Amino acid sequence: MLNDIEIAQQAEMKNIKEVAAKLDIKEDDIEMYGKYKAKLSDELIASVQKNENGKLILVTAINPTPAGEGKTTITVGLGEAMGRLNKKAVIALREPSLGPCFGIKGGAAGGGYAQVVPMEDLNLHFTGDFHAITSANNLLAAMMDNHIHQGNALGIDVNRIVFKRCMDMNDRALRHTVIGLGKRVDGVPREDGFVITVASEIMAILCLAADFNDLKERLGRIIVAYNYQNEPVTAKDLKAVGAMAALLKDAIKPNMIQTLEHTPALVHGGPFANIAHGCNSVIATKTALKLADYVITEAGFGADLGAEKFFDIKCRMNGLKPDAVVLVATVKALKYNGGVPKTELGQENLEALKKGIVNLEKHIENLQKYQVPVVVTLNRFITDTDAELAFVEKFCKDRNCDFALANVWEKGGEGGIELANAVLNTLENKKSDFKVLYKDELSIKEKISCIATEIYGAANVTYSPEADRAIAKIEEMGFGNFPVCMAKNQYSLSDDPKKLGRPEGFDINIREVYVSAGAGFVVAITGTIMTMPGLPKVPAAENISVNDDGVICGLF
Amino acid sequence: MLNDIEIAQQAEMKNIKEVAAKLDIKEDDIEMYGKYKAKLSDELIASVQKNENGKLILVTAINPTPAGEGKTTITVGLGEAMGRLNKKAVIALREPSLGPCFGIKGGAAGGGYAQVVPMEDLNLHFTGDFHAITSANNLLAAMMDNHIHQGNALGIDVNRIVFKRCMDMNDRALRHTVIGLGKRVDGVPREDGFVITVASEIMAILCLAADFNDLKERLGRIIVAYNYQNEPVTAKDLKAVGAMAALLKDAIKPNMIQTLEHTPALVHGGPFANIAHGCNSVIATKTALKLADYVITEAGFGADLGAEKFFDIKCRMNGLKPDAVVLVATVKALKYNGGVPKTELGQENLEALKKGIVNLEKHIENLQKYQVPVVVTLNRFITDTDAELAFVEKFCKDRNCDFALANVWEKGGEGGIELANAVLNTLENKKSDFKVLYKDELSIKEKISCIATEIYGAANVTYSPEADRAIAKIEEMGFGNFPVCMAKNQYSLSDDPKKLGRPEGFDINIREVYVSAGAGFVVAITGTIMTMPGLPKVPAAENISVNDDGVICGLF
Repeated sequence: MLNDIEIAQQAEMKNIKEVAAKLDIKEDDIEMYGKYKAKLSDELIASVQKNENGKLILVTAINPTPAGEGKTTITVGLGEAMGRLNKKAVIALREPSLGPCFGIKGGAAGGGYAQVVPMEDLNLHFTGDFHAITSANNLLAAMMDNHIHQGNALGIDVNRIVFKRCMDMNDRALRHTVIGLGKRVDGVPREDGFVITVASEIMAILCLAADFNDLKERLGRIIVAYNYQNEPVTAKDLKAVGAMAALLKDAIKPNMIQTLEHTPALVHGGPFANIAHGCNSVIATKTALKLADYVITEAGFGADLGAEKFFDIKCRMNGLKPDAVVLVATVKALKYNGGVPKTELGQENLEALKKGIVNLEKHIENLQKYQVPVVVTLNRFITDTDAELAFVEKFCKDRNCDFALANVWEKGGEGGIELANAVLNTLENKKSDFKVLYKDELSIKEKISCIATEIYGAANVTYSPEADRAIAKIEEMGFGNFPVCMAKNQYSLSDDPKKLGRPEGFDINIREVYVSAGAGFVVAITGTIMTMPGLPKVPAAENISVNDDGVICGLF
Repeated sequence: MLNDIEIAQQAEMKNIKEVAAKLDIKEDDIEMYGKYKAKLSDELIASVQKNENGKLILVTAINPTPAGEGKTTITVGLGEAMGRLNKKAVIALREPSLGPCFGIKGGAAGGGYAQVVPMEDLNLHFTGDFHAITSANNLLAAMMDNHIHQGNALGIDVNRIVFKRCMDMNDRALRHTVIGLGKRVDGVPREDGFVITVASEIMAILCLAADFNDLKERLGRIIVAYNYQNEPVTAKDLKAVGAMAALLKDAIKPNMIQTLEHTPALVHGGPFANIAHGCNSVIATKTALKLADYVITEAGFGADLGAEKFFDIKCRMNGLKPDAVVLVATVKALKYNGGVPKTELGQENLEALKKGIVNLEKHIENLQKYQVPVVVTLNRFITDTDAELAFVEKFCKDRNCDFALANVWEKGGEGGIELANAVLNTLENKKSDFKVLYKDELSIKEKISCIATEIYGAANVTYSPEADRAIAKIEEMGFGNFPVCMAKNQYSLSDDPKKLGRPEGFDINIREVYVSAGAGFVVAITGTIMTMPGLPKVPAAENISVNDDGVICGLF
């Protein structure tokens, strides 16, 4: 059997001009990056604003398990299936980070016959968006340290610098550093650290900005440090906004590529799903809605994190109204939630399935709180039995969810037709009455409490003294009306990754809280959150190569 | 009067397809990055290998002065003039670094009506080559620190790590750092530092590689550290080569843009001119020779550094044979060399000119040692008097150099016609019998001595004890046959930037010597060499902005 990169490399791609033409986009309205990648021009985006919006479909999943759910694969396969049904559909995905590509995870472009291509380009530099974000981030940091070195007129307290340098790499040695060592001409010594580029606030800003002017405004609001009077110092104070904006001028334009079946895919932005909101860019999503009748997008991690942030941050800030949600699960993952060890997931086990399906149940209930119709899909494995499939189907239908099997990894769009029909049926027959979970006016603690109890199922929320103080300061600074971006482990609905299924009666402990003033949300951190991953004992990079024909091998 | 960016932005660019067509390149043979930038495909490069080589013309200059010589401007203007004479010409330039762009210097794309465009793209991310180099560099560093963290099977001595991380930014605070702080999971603490990307050995490698396979070989030879047995540890030992090569797969392809008069320009690579060789890529130069009848290229700094390295490193390694050299000077700069203060350079002063012209004289003599015919050109200023111009012309003709005035900043190609005719005349009537300055077989000290005495005019070379030890070790490791890359201040022929004109009887002190085993040269450092610049009190970045029409302002 072929692996993902081999399938991708055997694909006959169409020139991206032809893919764009499916959406009535003229050659002059795209900026080509080679033959198979393009950016949408500002002129195109302006010109389609008068169009009606298409339907917005979010693909999300149960809590991730080691069995793998295939959320991106389903997203791509659903787009391919829509194409087979002659629907004008666009997929809107996040761009992958270089870091995981060289670490463990490998590439991120769907899988099997439900991939977006060119896979190698997407996973390496693509159109340079992440490099632009890295540059803008590090220019701001350099201007801040230069400001301190040149006399520190703004009175920046070097012990209260909150903005970090970034790199699109898994590099644990950069987590905690000391910089500015050497002689007087080499700057002012201080503690520092790097985050991976996808964890930069600038990434979140690029993805939440409504347009270029909004981007500039948001960049200006980034808090880089506090001064000796405990007041925030911003990127605007450092006069860095114009140059950062110049660096991001092209990065803000959505990228278009294609699926293996030539469905157009807008792949743009990729903020972390923990300390940021984990969704592709608003500009890409909104443009896709103007270009197509059906826009299929996804959000990071399971529905408790991804969908919640998609609704309560991305949709809230930009007036987006999702029309349906596809909730992805697998029989294996549900049995894993029911306590079956990873090695035994291939055997029929209705008892474990019944026990584990409570995880799916909770996510269905959660999504229905947003008043958006839900379609559940099972990403099929060969080991799934009819009895298991039938059990899940009935379970979902009893809860007013459409249900469909999907087999897009193996069969591409054809394996997604059943799902596509279920989604179309839902869109036609069930009305979305989308509403966000909580109001802007609630206090930060009320918002956190609302998410923790309503979505996670927690009994209580507790706060560290540092978190208490930070919340008071954030509300004093006038950011109390921001939505909350929860940073929690993705494996459990609780803050303990070992509590599978549907945990109850647990507390959520908020360890740290800070404001991302440019992104426009307050980050509440439970447990330990890693913003700079490390490489494993044998990095995936060791197996990547380019053969004599210039073909990249070993990128998964 | 319009400034450079305004002239560039008012230009009517042709679609790069049309520019490529002038060189008989088909649309299918270029990979477009938007409408005005393209990379040449591997297939094209392979297909033109059977073509005859065009003529290779190097543009170099006297030692730089605060008056400015305009070497790149002349290079571009000469290309434009060749176009006006209906000659099939290509310009081969270096790509600019982001760092200086936000610091003092501003953009680097020629000036006035002798610029390459699109100027903003070129000065910001361009086609992402430098970002790719940064990524490859930092992947290698991350894999090295990960190797140490995961058990250090290669026995890397953390006190003898020589490979640094890099960033394409002026950021003095990163010159001297400590990394790997924190807990056990956060890596192994050690001293580190960043260089600017253009100072990375990978940049030098990309620019000296004959092809992609040679690139891979060279990457593998990079010495990252020494082990406890004092043996070198390489990128190949860390199994990093394949992934680095994958990151550089597109970066190695030459970029094509155009001058304001639509002459094709291959702009590719940009190694530092001090600790590296300061020339554009070999692949671009060689491809240009296959595509055009006249290839005009330049090298960094004055002829003592730039031309010397172009001849003794770039040409030596790749069998390139320059056919003519254009040596750029200005009347102002020659008077400055004659002791006139910067504020009085606008007044006629034949005495000072006579005194200062010895700098030009020495460079003419030096270039003639390589047995390549020399054309001297004066980049004209309005204040130059007829008597001054006549004096320089006679001085050059007496030394068997063709001579021409150039006024390309103001007049574009038309201002370069006289120079183009002089160059064509030289190519037709004078034979190049190019030879390198020294043989591979000489010892490292003999090579250094040869450059210092023959080119700089030094009396003696002295060595620090560290340099002595390093040379012995380098020869022991088997790198004694490498050419030497001298790192010296560019303002004087000596190692003292204040000694203008033609200093004599001075010593050159070699402070530090190390081998760039991948690039294939030995670096000999005189004085203090900065590999990570800093930002000035008021960085140029503070004045850069993007207006409401998406136009970048303040980039010079």
